[in-house]
Amino acid sequence: MSETIFSKIIAGEIPCHKVYEDEHVLAFLDIGPLAEGHTLVIPKEPAATLDALSDDASSAIGRVLPRVCRAVMKATESTAYNVLQNNGAEAGQEVMHVHFHVIPKTASGGLQKSWTPGAIDHVKAAELAERMRGLIA
Amino acid sequence: MSETIFSKIIAGEIPCHKVYEDEHVLAFLDIGPLAEGHTLVIPKEPAATLDALSDDASSAIGRVLPRVCRAVMKATESTAYNVLQNNGAEAGQEVMHVHFHVIPKTASGGLQKSWTPGAIDHVKAAELAERMRGLIA
Repeated sequence: MSETIFSKIIAGEIPCHKVYEDEHVLAFLDIGPLAEGHTLVIPKEPAATLDALSDDASSAIGRVLPRVCRAVMKATESTAYNVLQNNGAEAGQEVMHVHFHVIPKTASGGLQKSWTPGAIDHVKAAELAERMRGLIA
Repeated sequence: MSETIFSKIIAGEIPCHKVYEDEHVLAFLDIGPLAEGHTLVIPKEPAATLDALSDDASSAIGRVLPRVCRAVMKATESTAYNVLQNNGAEAGQEVMHVHFHVIPKTASGGLQKSWTPGAIDHVKAAELAERMRGLIA
């Protein structure tokens, strides 16, 4: 994987407003926040997308996420928030190193999204779920 | 925590198109998909929001997420996807049981969002990050 701004932050070559750090995980404030307290949680393991992350790194990220969420809520006095993780440029990923956004939802700020669900085709879905069960190692 | 449609799915009282299951985690197809293969990954532990989740449950979810993402990508032949987790009605949460959406990004479907970042105030951010570091147990 090529170097990114996040690998340079992990290496200490670029400064950040650090929120949390352990052996596997680093959390720091996003410098282009959607709301005050917008925090990024990243693995130290260099993986571009979540599907490429090891079990150890992904377990460690999972364990830390609720702790970071609690700190974001308390520090910003927010009661609602979104956790978003984009994979691939088409999905809006800008830095090619796995990162989870923790974004407080405020009256004027936070993640703006629209939600237009389709109707499931239960026959196709049963076939798809079966295929997916077979694909999960 | 009160009963939800997801606790009933975990209990087997409501059917689902199951993708994965282990001691801590269940994954199944969303019945209102934003794109084909839209999958929900939930803890069996009954927590309404991510900040309320235990270390064990959140580590287990973290470990499983990349596996589910790989299966979604392979089964739908998608190359980009978003992982989204909403907390609180104001943030778009509809079922009050923690759930991660894994949503393939397609030409016409997937998660629609807009992104209008603000500029960080580095003085305020340094103070906020320090407070957050103190809040993380």
